[in-house]
Amino acid sequence: MPVGTLGSVKGVSQDVLEELGVQILLGNTYHLYLRPGVETVRKMGGLHRFMSWDRAILTDSGGFQVFSLNELRKVSEEGVAFRSHLDGSPHFLSPEKATEVQIGLGADVIMAFDECTEYPADAQRSRASMELTLRWASRCKDYFEEHKHEVPWNSSRLSAVSSQDKQDSRQAPGRTQSLFGIVQGGMDPELRRESAERTIDIGFPGYAIGGLSVGEPRELTRDIVLSTLEHLPSSQPRYLMGVGTPEEIAQYARAGVDMMDCVLPTRAARHGLLFTSEGKISIKQARYAQDDSALDPACECRVCQRYSRAYLRHLYASNELLAQVLNTVHNLHFYLATMRTVRAWIRAGHAVGTVK
Amino acid sequence: MPVGTLGSVKGVSQDVLEELGVQILLGNTYHLYLRPGVETVRKMGGLHRFMSWDRAILTDSGGFQVFSLNELRKVSEEGVAFRSHLDGSPHFLSPEKATEVQIGLGADVIMAFDECTEYPADAQRSRASMELTLRWASRCKDYFEEHKHEVPWNSSRLSAVSSQDKQDSRQAPGRTQSLFGIVQGGMDPELRRESAERTIDIGFPGYAIGGLSVGEPRELTRDIVLSTLEHLPSSQPRYLMGVGTPEEIAQYARAGVDMMDCVLPTRAARHGLLFTSEGKISIKQARYAQDDSALDPACECRVCQRYSRAYLRHLYASNELLAQVLNTVHNLHFYLATMRTVRAWIRAGHAVGTVK
Repeated sequence: MPVGTLGSVKGVSQDVLEELGVQILLGNTYHLYLRPGVETVRKMGGLHRFMSWDRAILTDSGGFQVFSLNELRKVSEEGVAFRSHLDGSPHFLSPEKATEVQIGLGADVIMAFDECTEYPADAQRSRASMELTLRWASRCKDYFEEHKHEVPWNSSRLSAVSSQDKQDSRQAPGRTQSLFGIVQGGMDPELRRESAERTIDIGFPGYAIGGLSVGEPRELTRDIVLSTLEHLPSSQPRYLMGVGTPEEIAQYARAGVDMMDCVLPTRAARHGLLFTSEGKISIKQARYAQDDSALDPACECRVCQRYSRAYLRHLYASNELLAQVLNTVHNLHFYLATMRTVRAWIRAGHAVGTVK
Repeated sequence: MPVGTLGSVKGVSQDVLEELGVQILLGNTYHLYLRPGVETVRKMGGLHRFMSWDRAILTDSGGFQVFSLNELRKVSEEGVAFRSHLDGSPHFLSPEKATEVQIGLGADVIMAFDECTEYPADAQRSRASMELTLRWASRCKDYFEEHKHEVPWNSSRLSAVSSQDKQDSRQAPGRTQSLFGIVQGGMDPELRRESAERTIDIGFPGYAIGGLSVGEPRELTRDIVLSTLEHLPSSQPRYLMGVGTPEEIAQYARAGVDMMDCVLPTRAARHGLLFTSEGKISIKQARYAQDDSALDPACECRVCQRYSRAYLRHLYASNELLAQVLNTVHNLHFYLATMRTVRAWIRAGHAVGTVK
């Protein structure tokens, strides 16, 4: 899932995302809650219609972003008080509020509001954090079950604008929302097992593995992912949050992970770091200044088909906007092609890794 | 002509420019000379091939940009000594050098190296400047006639890469280069007439009106343009440099101007200023935050067909890259549509204004 923090994958228009074959985007609840605000998105007919995107959208719960604020937040049983990174204004997100916001945004997949346990954390802290996430998961589910049908933009809104011909093409069809639970438990496989089992007891249509990529060594990430996967039902979507490199997403997909999101392809692109079949390329390097070859000769994306490394290097070195646009298109294509390869591998009959 | 300063129209990929119907781009010799440098562009097969653009390219002579450097330049009979705005390094552009650089870039239309007379300028200064431009125009033509066939990327380069299949699609066909003269003369219609006649005596396949939009009142610009046009042959392209608003380009085109370039549509777009059939819109304004209508209901561009003012306002207010991309696409479409309307008006049999 490419990351479209504020209702836009930075620099890439929606028609290009469609052409790339993007089926689902991630939006950040924390950011959208602050700008443009859920009320605006509601009035504009939900996030799909607001950004003119008919395919799926998953919103994170805002938890991870809020926890990243460090100095600006305070966690209690009720929720998290924090100050906006934009203007310092005070806000409060609870499991109920986070769910309400995501229902209002109109995401197809809504994530439960969890506490992302910091790394490192001792046994006591990891358990307390996991227990809090479990209590919050129940509250999210209760709120969601009671309010999931309250999506005003899905009924009244659509009929209200139906007479305006110009805008019909921007209407999103009626959609069903799903709430996913999130497994925490720090870096302890036993706590992870307990978190998985008790989250399954609450009952969700899909499960995410959260609290990883928070500074721990890569091998530890892998061990936790693989052991946690064994405790999650393979018949339901299993979503690994915030991972990873092309190698990692291929590895985890083969191990049974169904969904992943990561800012890496888009953020790296904006910093001139490009993924290719021959490894990573830092396009800013002078060695590419007169390199007439395609960025990745094996790549079929628009960028590799049309432009040379020399041109891409010139755009980047000259701080041209188009550098960020083209680099992002290429990296997204590379990630999506990586996943297509894994899907073909699975369809060819290969057993998915750790599924029991 | 959209402005593609550094071999890129900021934020817009070449396939979108093609789709918009752009037939000719302007590149800035001064900027391309500094980055990536004419030697790199030569080695990469010329600007067309370097940026993967098969349609026409016009390069300015670098004169206007160099004169904009103010403190960093020194004009002599021989040419202009200046320091780079990037690193302060010393450079020298003469009529011969500017022509050599443009031949090397491979532009279809090359502009003579002129002195852009500052505004205001007294009679003596205006004449001296005009005379210098005339002497430089002769030197440009002499150099051009002697060296115009020396475009290495047009012959040896193409055969050298012909075995590389991957790159054939990026090859520019053999092209013919033309050198245009530039009329100066400050704000004095008589000097302008003399400049036009003596530039015609030197003999070029096309003529530009330079030295306008340098701070003078709009009515003065118009008077000078209209009076100068009368002294330029309508059978050859007449190019008005650095103009203007949508109203101005329509007015001047109807008056007989064949070519214009301006950074306004692209630069204004990046600042959230959008041209519409209902006038200018500053998309940053809060009044558009929940405006569900298309940016310009009468516009057929991709942006107006797909996105609302509310979304464009959100992108701009959130400093999203996509704001600059979409705003630029719309403004370019608006300018090109304006010119299409004028062409239809001319084809419908309307007499072009001041042509004698």
